[in-house]
Amino acid sequence: MEHLKETTISSKEIFKGRVIDLFVEEVKLPNGKTSTREIVKHPGAVAVIAITSENKILMVEQFRKPLGRTLVEIPAGKLEKGEEPEATAKRELQEETGYTCGELRPLISFYTSPGFADELVHLFIAENLEKLTVAAELDEDEFLDVMEVTLDEALEMIQNKRIYDAKTAYAVQYLQLKKALR
Amino acid sequence: MEHLKETTISSKEIFKGRVIDLFVEEVKLPNGKTSTREIVKHPGAVAVIAITSENKILMVEQFRKPLGRTLVEIPAGKLEKGEEPEATAKRELQEETGYTCGELRPLISFYTSPGFADELVHLFIAENLEKLTVAAELDEDEFLDVMEVTLDEALEMIQNKRIYDAKTAYAVQYLQLKKALR
Repeated sequence: MEHLKETTISSKEIFKGRVIDLFVEEVKLPNGKTSTREIVKHPGAVAVIAITSENKILMVEQFRKPLGRTLVEIPAGKLEKGEEPEATAKRELQEETGYTCGELRPLISFYTSPGFADELVHLFIAENLEKLTVAAELDEDEFLDVMEVTLDEALEMIQNKRIYDAKTAYAVQYLQLKKALR
Repeated sequence: MEHLKETTISSKEIFKGRVIDLFVEEVKLPNGKTSTREIVKHPGAVAVIAITSENKILMVEQFRKPLGRTLVEIPAGKLEKGEEPEATAKRELQEETGYTCGELRPLISFYTSPGFADELVHLFIAENLEKLTVAAELDEDEFLDVMEVTLDEALEMIQNKRIYDAKTAYAVQYLQLKKALR
């Protein structure tokens, strides 16, 4: 795909944050002209479709400051430096829901916003859940409600926009497909 | 969900760009403590699942500078100020693929990265496509290849990570589900 390639002429760091960094790059386009690209760097994240023994999906409701409202989402979290995605997924599931899982299976990974960010989300499936007797600790700036919902309830939450994010919409559709193929 | 709410103490504009703006906000957490939130503002986007009369899916391959590689994606583009998502979807489909569509049906909308960005993607389905005799013009910094792929080819592209973004993975899964329910 060489005829589509853009090469970096210069890269300027605009911001270095706790979660994201921002760069503005000057690039050479395939036709030799130049343009600028605004690029958000993110460490990547994991998300977990966790199914209880009663065939319910674990969800967490939390306030999302960029949107100024709460969303209901599958458990998820940022990758820590040097941590394998599977380990992050187990840790986030425990911290956010109080459940630990036997096996954790990778399902798919995807970039969330390839036009301006490099965030890659690794999606896992967890079954054979076990409730922890001692609650795991959340990050000190993290507040959330845990919910257990049926597939029909999740579909209704998509309709009324309580579920309103890409990874959770994908997860719900995945469970619909799995049911349809049964 | 008042017990989860974060309120803004201060908001600082870090960057104002062509595509995104960046703010850092100091917030008051539900427990009264404070924290900071890094927030990317984006105008929102549309994406189109366009199905040809031969039952193929229109895809475009383009270089994504944040990833340093090309991706195969469904046609998509940013919302212009004051433009309705449906009009943007029609325009982007024409510009990127050279096809115009009869009807365009809204399927779902989702936030792509609610942890750090407010980008909302509106996903549409287009059928009854017609090839334009005169090619529409792309943005001057946009270069892409148009492809027409079967569902099986799209699934293979997910396996080999040529399709590797959330909206396109959702679109392919949607078509799988539609087929399974037939």
